Amino acid sequence: MKTVLTVLMSCMLSAGAIAAPANDPATLGQIRDAAMKSDYAYERLADMTDLIGPRLSGSPGAAAAVEQVAAAMRKLGATVTLQPVKVPHWVRGAETAELVDYAGRPAGLSQRVVLTALGGSGATPAAGLTAPVIVVRDFDELKARAAEVKGAIVLFDVKFDQEMADRGLAGPAYGNGSRYRTLGPKIASQMGAAGFLVRSVGGADFRIAHTGATALSEADRIPAAAVTAEDSMLIARLSKRGPVKMHLTLTPQNLPDADSFNVIADLPGTDKADEIVVVSGHLDSWDLATGANDDGTGVAGAMGVLQTLKALNLKPRRTIRMIAWMNEENGTRGGAAYHAANKDSILKQFAAMESDSGGGRPFGILASVEAKAEKHFAPVMAALQPIGAGVFTRRDHVGAADLALLEKDGVPLFQPQVDTSTYFHYHHTPADTLDKVDPENLRRHVAVMSTLSWYLANMEQPLGRAPVVEK
Amino acid sequence: MKTVLTVLMSCMLSAGAIAAPANDPATLGQIRDAAMKSDYAYERLADMTDLIGPRLSGSPGAAAAVEQVAAAMRKLGATVTLQPVKVPHWVRGAETAELVDYAGRPAGLSQRVVLTALGGSGATPAAGLTAPVIVVRDFDELKARAAEVKGAIVLFDVKFDQEMADRGLAGPAYGNGSRYRTLGPKIASQMGAAGFLVRSVGGADFRIAHTGATALSEADRIPAAAVTAEDSMLIARLSKRGPVKMHLTLTPQNLPDADSFNVIADLPGTDKADEIVVVSGHLDSWDLATGANDDGTGVAGAMGVLQTLKALNLKPRRTIRMIAWMNEENGTRGGAAYHAANKDSILKQFAAMESDSGGGRPFGILASVEAKAEKHFAPVMAALQPIGAGVFTRRDHVGAADLALLEKDGVPLFQPQVDTSTYFHYHHTPADTLDKVDPENLRRHVAVMSTLSWYLANMEQPLGRAPVVEK
Ligand SMILES: [Zn+2]
Ligand SMILES: [Zn+2]
Repeated sequence: MKTVLTVLMSCMLSAGAIAAPANDPATLGQIRDAAMKSDYAYERLADMTDLIGPRLSGSPGAAAAVEQVAAAMRKLGATVTLQPVKVPHWVRGAETAELVDYAGRPAGLSQRVVLTALGGSGATPAAGLTAPVIVVRDFDELKARAAEVKGAIVLFDVKFDQEMADRGLAGPAYGNGSRYRTLGPKIASQMGAAGFLVRSVGGADFRIAHTGATALSEADRIPAAAVTAEDSMLIARLSKRGPVKMHLTLTPQNLPDADSFNVIADLPGTDKADEIVVVSGHLDSWDLATGANDDGTGVAGAMGVLQTLKALNLKPRRTIRMIAWMNEENGTRGGAAYHAANKDSILKQFAAMESDSGGGRPFGILASVEAKAEKHFAPVMAALQPIGAGVFTRRDHVGAADLALLEKDGVPLFQPQVDTSTYFHYHHTPADTLDKVDPENLRRHVAVMSTLSWYLANMEQPLGRAPVVEK
Repeated sequence: MKTVLTVLMSCMLSAGAIAAPANDPATLGQIRDAAMKSDYAYERLADMTDLIGPRLSGSPGAAAAVEQVAAAMRKLGATVTLQPVKVPHWVRGAETAELVDYAGRPAGLSQRVVLTALGGSGATPAAGLTAPVIVVRDFDELKARAAEVKGAIVLFDVKFDQEMADRGLAGPAYGNGSRYRTLGPKIASQMGAAGFLVRSVGGADFRIAHTGATALSEADRIPAAAVTAEDSMLIARLSKRGPVKMHLTLTPQNLPDADSFNVIADLPGTDKADEIVVVSGHLDSWDLATGANDDGTGVAGAMGVLQTLKALNLKPRRTIRMIAWMNEENGTRGGAAYHAANKDSILKQFAAMESDSGGGRPFGILASVEAKAEKHFAPVMAALQPIGAGVFTRRDHVGAADLALLEKDGVPLFQPQVDTSTYFHYHHTPADTLDKVDPENLRRHVAVMSTLSWYLANMEQPLGRAPVVEK
């Protein structure tokens, strides 16, 4: 039961919020503290992962997630728009493989290989195909062995550099491996390969396969899959003993593009309502898991920003726009749709933030602002220092997938910096589940995103444009 | 090319070995050092896992492994016997599950559950069965909810105590969980359950299911599976929101008992050849992985003992008997067959050793000898000290599965003590593969087993009988 005093205080707070200097340290601290006390984001993450599950573009899960997030944002009182996006529609099928011949094989035996189809993979015949496996380490070796590639299954046995990830360079370590996954199938196909395999791009050793996107198109579609690190090493070892032959069955379907949406929820601004601060994550996930880290935490975090500011009855000068992107994983069509709709008034996109590095412990903010703008962020970093998230890192280029086109057009990008040392253990695997997200880290996540969103929406100083535009 | 000197030295060594005092420190050190330089055991392990793969009792892999180990032992010059064993023959089938209804489920959606059938599991209809899931934590809760069990699928959501494993108590931690897996299906079946699920007994968080044996028999066979820790937690969370319904498909087959063998390879003794020192591991594995740790390392280690002594041309007084047991995992019929064949002359079984705790770093020896015999082992422990394996631990009861009947009849048991803190991450999962075994740890393993085998085969002091027989 509310006391008269509580109601009075609440009214005073409500009225007072608009009048107070928008970016005073007290308000920033109040936002941080409110975020650190709220279970809202974790509850949204639990609803998304436990009730819906995987959310690959075009799937019923993705459609249910659009509805669920929109409903939650409407319930908060935000202005919700569903922005139409046509998305690729790829559906996983059967996926099995056996090594049916190799030197030293006892008669009648074959070895099972654990693998998972990559996004956009073509299908083998329903009964599978049998072909020799060629093991290579890089594109140069592939080219040098071009004569062997025709009719073969090419395996890129490239070890994930976990030591690099442990040194804080998980992103580059991932990039080193994922380019073989992304570009390899197309190149192998053009060289006449019957199929493509890549060692899973990730650091875990639990015989789990990591899926992901490929650059395959209708013209060059071949069966393409990620094998587990263990199976990749097995094939590499056996191929040192002699030729290895695989029976491979992959029956995914590439269906016509499907209708889907970006979920856009606005907390309208006051005097600068036409200027937009985007805070976002991507709503689609891969189909193997419930995408708690990739990128449930980003979406739940962005939803938490609106809830935190709403709960405090804070009204930003610029509009704070929560976006739950569709199709980051295999097309970035959501980012493209938003860019297309806004490119003619791109200067109204004041700043944009995406969280897509998982729910690890946040330690600061990464930003593609001009060097001279860096000093403006001292108040927000001071507010985040008490939760261990006071590190501001400026770069010319941030490049979050859904925001890449905005950045190219000069919109400064922001993203939380988080501990990603184990992110690629789980990334794109069946193990990216709710239990991997620490609720306290998610609160910190919301605190970082809320404080920064509020600050951006109210800052007086010129922010300028992203340096990348000047290249 | 051998020089004349080398040949001469080799002859002198060969002749000298028999005459020297059998258990002198120099010989023990020589055995240890030879083991630490040899790749023999690792090569055998690679052949077993890479060329054959899984070796579940009754499978073609198990049959191939019997042949492979016997051939390798014959090649060494050991006296090889195949001891017939009738083994259970259980074959995995399809295994899928979906949560088809739960509170908050968006229309048309279902959630996939990752699981794997347990040994001896019965089958659902080919099209699966649908039933409510009852989540319980222990047998008391199961009994208290007896009315709900009839027609339901019972899930034991019991968390593996990894902290206990980290404290060096992996075995007891495993026992706390595995009793639900072993006994739960039978008890649930007798209460009228339609199916049984257990949270995987193991400490990893990579959504992998751990299979294992059950006490199910023809009279009470129901479908029984292990779900991953992640899926168990999901079901537990959803069941807090309301009733949960699962569609479960498991189609394993329980076939008639199959013919198989223990592989026995003797290095014959000299003056006490009728007394036997058993050194062993189990040759069968679960069917999900290549069983590198469970128990490829045990078998390869035992094979390495014979190779080490043969290479040094050492001839033990007692016969050293390498045994690769069949059917440890789901029946221990191999251990029973050996016991039945030897129980009438049990005093001739001088001592028996089994390694079945994986290939983690060895730190010593566990033994079920009388307290007064402990002091006799000082020389062997001194020899193992330089490789960090000098800890001797005496217990009244060791109880290695294949040797349990021997111990009950008074045969002192020995096993290497190894670091098992991560053993149950991989145990009985698809991830128990060759890459998990560190070759250097396997060399240490062989060093421990060889030195101890030699010592036991030559010791002058009375060893006595296992304390357990006195109970
Ligand atoms: Zn992502
Ligand atoms: Zn075992």
